[in-house]
Amino acid sequence: MKITCNKNDLLNSVNIVLKAVPSKTSMSILECIIIDATDDNIRLITNDMELGIETIVKGSITEKGSVAINAKIFSDIVRRLPDNEVTIELKDNYVTKITCEKSKFNISGSSSEEFPYLPEIEKEKPITISQFSLKEIIRQTVFSISDNENNKIMTGELFEISKNDLRVLALDGHRIAIRKIKLKEENDDNKIIVPGKTLNEISKILSGEIDDFVKIFTTDKHILFEFDDTIVLSRLIEGDFYKIDQMLSTDYETKIKINKREFQNSIDRASLLIRDSDRKPIILDINNNVLELKINTEIGALNEKIDIELEGKDIKIGFNPKFLLDALRVIDDEIIDLYFINAKAPCFIRDKEQLYIYLILPVNINAGY
Amino acid sequence: MKITCNKNDLLNSVNIVLKAVPSKTSMSILECIIIDATDDNIRLITNDMELGIETIVKGSITEKGSVAINAKIFSDIVRRLPDNEVTIELKDNYVTKITCEKSKFNISGSSSEEFPYLPEIEKEKPITISQFSLKEIIRQTVFSISDNENNKIMTGELFEISKNDLRVLALDGHRIAIRKIKLKEENDDNKIIVPGKTLNEISKILSGEIDDFVKIFTTDKHILFEFDDTIVLSRLIEGDFYKIDQMLSTDYETKIKINKREFQNSIDRASLLIRDSDRKPIILDINNNVLELKINTEIGALNEKIDIELEGKDIKIGFNPKFLLDALRVIDDEIIDLYFINAKAPCFIRDKEQLYIYLILPVNINAGY
Repeated sequence: MKITCNKNDLLNSVNIVLKAVPSKTSMSILECIIIDATDDNIRLITNDMELGIETIVKGSITEKGSVAINAKIFSDIVRRLPDNEVTIELKDNYVTKITCEKSKFNISGSSSEEFPYLPEIEKEKPITISQFSLKEIIRQTVFSISDNENNKIMTGELFEISKNDLRVLALDGHRIAIRKIKLKEENDDNKIIVPGKTLNEISKILSGEIDDFVKIFTTDKHILFEFDDTIVLSRLIEGDFYKIDQMLSTDYETKIKINKREFQNSIDRASLLIRDSDRKPIILDINNNVLELKINTEIGALNEKIDIELEGKDIKIGFNPKFLLDALRVIDDEIIDLYFINAKAPCFIRDKEQLYIYLILPVNINAGY
Repeated sequence: MKITCNKNDLLNSVNIVLKAVPSKTSMSILECIIIDATDDNIRLITNDMELGIETIVKGSITEKGSVAINAKIFSDIVRRLPDNEVTIELKDNYVTKITCEKSKFNISGSSSEEFPYLPEIEKEKPITISQFSLKEIIRQTVFSISDNENNKIMTGELFEISKNDLRVLALDGHRIAIRKIKLKEENDDNKIIVPGKTLNEISKILSGEIDDFVKIFTTDKHILFEFDDTIVLSRLIEGDFYKIDQMLSTDYETKIKINKREFQNSIDRASLLIRDSDRKPIILDINNNVLELKINTEIGALNEKIDIELEGKDIKIGFNPKFLLDALRVIDDEIIDLYFINAKAPCFIRDKEQLYIYLILPVNINAGY
């Protein structure tokens, strides 16, 4: 194998495929990046057996072939090469010679034969979505998944496609995050559970541009994202997602309109007084047109008042401030609506069109607060 | 006590005094910031018993008094307050009420009586130096101190004052870093050893402006830096510093002129091939007007050539690349001079006026490389 490419093109591609290199593995071949120039394109490939990435590097192939090189060493070297043409050449015994200007590296590689190349999947009826929308919808929901591997379903997000609606749903037992967007074309109805890890990694690779698109293909077991010169292939989580639609009632006893920024800063200050060990809730005391936010812990006490617009009954309700903060951080609206039923029922933050719904369970507060 | 000040002024002062809050201590009072308004000024004070900082916050005192508040909690709160006037008021039992706009914190504080206030030292004959020069001279030498507490002297830097010369010296047994600057005024001869930790912390506080000055006072046991509205007081390290002047011979057998950036990048790449466990040296093979940089480790091999100007004999010599890199990073010259005697004697990087001298011991290399 002998290939030549530009250092920055190579570095961009290496940074993309690094996302599927496992940090811990007992199979050392998975710690490698495959440089594959057996075909007409130079491809870099990585695979941690859940998530696999393949990307094409612009460049020229003088001699076909392939090699596996330790991803960390290879990426460190490429990052520090001068900004110029890089030549990568396979020598005897998988020694890989990397040349750039007056710099000559010889690194031990290994055969790519043992490497689990990404399986071919059938590409039919893609869903097309802008990179911007996919990246946003992930950011706005993925914090609500659970990191408890004992409940596999909760570590993923439900992608629910119905005609030209895409609804994304994440939950962890204390809260639910839902975002809905319109797709340009009608699609077959489909429900799949995508691992949270896949979504986190892919959102780091996506450009986030409105005019760049991603094609999404699915099979029973896999989801494939195709964009730019890259494909990301991930296993799906098997099983049925939770039925949550009956929880999404729109009845309420109390509705408030509040300035999001003021509310968020106030909760942010309140959370300073909480030690991980005591987990005290914050109290929202809604009375007339004022929300009084209170907390009282070993460290100290905080009391703040925020003007609101109230519709319905007064209410006093407690929350884990983290769950409120997580939701508030990803809402772009300046003024938001919160809906309450009573101090033991979930609170909803949602917009009129229900493009976003954040459901948060309250914490039981006793008279002591 | 009742004081009022601007949030940003308060935050700046808190950030300054935080540098002398110990991360680990058995005396919980040392984890506090003292707010002292017993006098005409609002002063914040911290002290880890080696290093103490006192700074004045602009503001008004309505009621005199003082209190000790946990530094972490206080700084977290101040950081998150709205950008407005902050009122701090001492209530019963050292409860401290912090009010800003509609936000009211009540935090438990404690008496400042147990706190070790900074000792008064005699302020005579200050040395005056620009904040820029002090910050630079620290940055350019402090990496060469040792972090081995068993040899206390090596954890500090020698400040040597002779008339209007200030020479700063750091060494760790493998290398020596020396910088010299001219002071504006003549001073009494003096030699003191300043703890490296003090220098690291003070260089984070210094503005780095050429037109801002620091006054330095010393006694037998202390050094005091006075600048802006701040004083930093540190214990000195007691004992005699190493005599190193006889090592600073200017004889040489080989002198090269090399482009600093090229040399540094090349060593940087070479160090990628070194695992902490093997500690292989890099080889500089100087031959005619070429420096060939070589390294050969378990990970791989690197070979680079750099054009140089050679005066004297060819030489082949090995180094720990870290020691070369540390020195090269803080030299601003584009072209630098290296001086060698033989493969077992130290190498010198120095400018003509000897404003900087970096001495680095070589690593013994055998024929195997």
